[in-house]
Amino acid sequence: MPELRKDPITGRWVIIATDRAKRPSDFIRQSVPPASAKVCPFCYGNESKTPPEVLAYRGSGGPNEPGWRIRVVPNKFPVLGIEGDLNRQGDGMYDKMNGVGAHEVIIETPEHHLTLPEMAEKQVEEVLWAFKDRVCDLKKDHRFRYILLFKNHGEAAGATLEHPHSQLIALPVIPKRVREEVEGARLFYEFKERCIYCDIIRQETANGIRLVGETDRFTVIEPYAPRFPFETWILPKHHASHFEEADAATLQNLAWILRSTLRKIDKVLERPAYNFIVHSAPVQEVHLAHFHWHLEIIPKLTKVAGFEWGTGFYINPTPPEESAKFLREAGLG
Amino acid sequence: MPELRKDPITGRWVIIATDRAKRPSDFIRQSVPPASAKVCPFCYGNESKTPPEVLAYRGSGGPNEPGWRIRVVPNKFPVLGIEGDLNRQGDGMYDKMNGVGAHEVIIETPEHHLTLPEMAEKQVEEVLWAFKDRVCDLKKDHRFRYILLFKNHGEAAGATLEHPHSQLIALPVIPKRVREEVEGARLFYEFKERCIYCDIIRQETANGIRLVGETDRFTVIEPYAPRFPFETWILPKHHASHFEEADAATLQNLAWILRSTLRKIDKVLERPAYNFIVHSAPVQEVHLAHFHWHLEIIPKLTKVAGFEWGTGFYINPTPPEESAKFLREAGLG
Repeated sequence: MPELRKDPITGRWVIIATDRAKRPSDFIRQSVPPASAKVCPFCYGNESKTPPEVLAYRGSGGPNEPGWRIRVVPNKFPVLGIEGDLNRQGDGMYDKMNGVGAHEVIIETPEHHLTLPEMAEKQVEEVLWAFKDRVCDLKKDHRFRYILLFKNHGEAAGATLEHPHSQLIALPVIPKRVREEVEGARLFYEFKERCIYCDIIRQETANGIRLVGETDRFTVIEPYAPRFPFETWILPKHHASHFEEADAATLQNLAWILRSTLRKIDKVLERPAYNFIVHSAPVQEVHLAHFHWHLEIIPKLTKVAGFEWGTGFYINPTPPEESAKFLREAGLG
Repeated sequence: MPELRKDPITGRWVIIATDRAKRPSDFIRQSVPPASAKVCPFCYGNESKTPPEVLAYRGSGGPNEPGWRIRVVPNKFPVLGIEGDLNRQGDGMYDKMNGVGAHEVIIETPEHHLTLPEMAEKQVEEVLWAFKDRVCDLKKDHRFRYILLFKNHGEAAGATLEHPHSQLIALPVIPKRVREEVEGARLFYEFKERCIYCDIIRQETANGIRLVGETDRFTVIEPYAPRFPFETWILPKHHASHFEEADAATLQNLAWILRSTLRKIDKVLERPAYNFIVHSAPVQEVHLAHFHWHLEIIPKLTKVAGFEWGTGFYINPTPPEESAKFLREAGLG
């Protein structure tokens, strides 16, 4: 069972994989290129190479057979285990608990070489539906306090398999960065009686210099103080704290703007590696007036060096006003 | 002039390089390998290729001539500018100030191909003296509230030049991660009337499972909740909040243990890229009973993926008890 350990100084939680621990030689040999010629466990016909599916949208076939359009499976090498109690305990002056949680893979399409922005709009919409369906199911388990949805695209962004997929991790603790974000927004709300994200949308829409695009329901901006070049946020215009409560029309609209934004990024930066992360409120909280869910896209363009690790203080060589201009001028809706 | 901008939600400051902004094509072309055959600006005879030195320890020669053992120069492409006022101001709902600060390079040796752990002990000691001398000089400038000392070794760790060097960045704000660390330690002190780092040293020394080594004056451990495999901390045994107040005997002892620890890491992990960062108290504060300076070494072995960026919640595949064992067994003192 992996362990969740808390840094006693900053309160940051870390997952320590105690079971399949990596030895020094694993890191030294890591530079071997991934064998993409190998059998892909996410392609049609290889359904038995993953743990049994927990969700599938399919046109034909039975469970764990070909015919699916989207398939969600537990990660074969999960960072957290689904069974058991948290067993919170001290360890001398330190704190730990069992690494209980869920780690799932959303296989976005049967087509191995397709990328998310190349998929049909309907397909992207179904990926978002799978996100929603899985969160709604998992949040019934009250051990889980936060559910993270994210995508690593490209090896530089941490993807270990080529076949298009996203991931979900359900956690028994609220990660530090999430707590900071929710708490920062709460303080603003207390002071102003307004949601800070709603204010950001208003200001960015009014002056337009960091605006990338918008639809009926979403605004896409480069944030004022981005950590990374071309960091891009997609925010719903209507205040809502939880992604998983988005309705059908909202998901349809999000599919369109997400696909269009990724196409712009692909065009301007020549198909970079990227991460995107859904920032949503903790799942066991009810509607929060101060927090506003959104999606953050981070193209992987620069190396993060010692300075950034040491301080949480980022150096960004591209002003967001310029990256916004490049993305606007990419066209593509 | 670069800008310092504050994320309105989390309070994280970011340096935005407005002057020499990178365009999309700069990132696309970035994969060209660095030309190590080029003239190295840090080698003897090329002193005119850097800005004039601000400090040098030399056996012969005049300023900006060969003959130095250590040389400190302003970074030719600084992320912050040394001149001018902070000019703190609002920008609609946002906050910014001028990017005033210092960005210096400590050239650790004239020998291009030497690495820090391969240098003579005396040479490492002089590198640490240069760290101390520069901080003591810069902290007289009261615009600077934090001074960061760090080293990026190897391209994967963000080093852009091969010649052995460390860096210093003096900042007009206290970075978020530093504030969190100092604040976390302060809360512990309030509660317990003890320094948390002193407690950690006591517990780790007593049970030994995460202990890597020790000298008269320093303890080397793998922390309980490390973000990264083989993350290693070097802590002074005697409580002190500011690195720059270390005396001659302490610096001598630190040189020995730093060199020995890096040699262990080189041996076990086959000369990995790494970052090290000096964690010291904010320079304008006087002695803090609750904060304890130390040095953190992070070998660059894994890719940081979307999950980590999104949450500040790290997955570490190597328990610190195991990495400590590997480093202890590497011998080398």
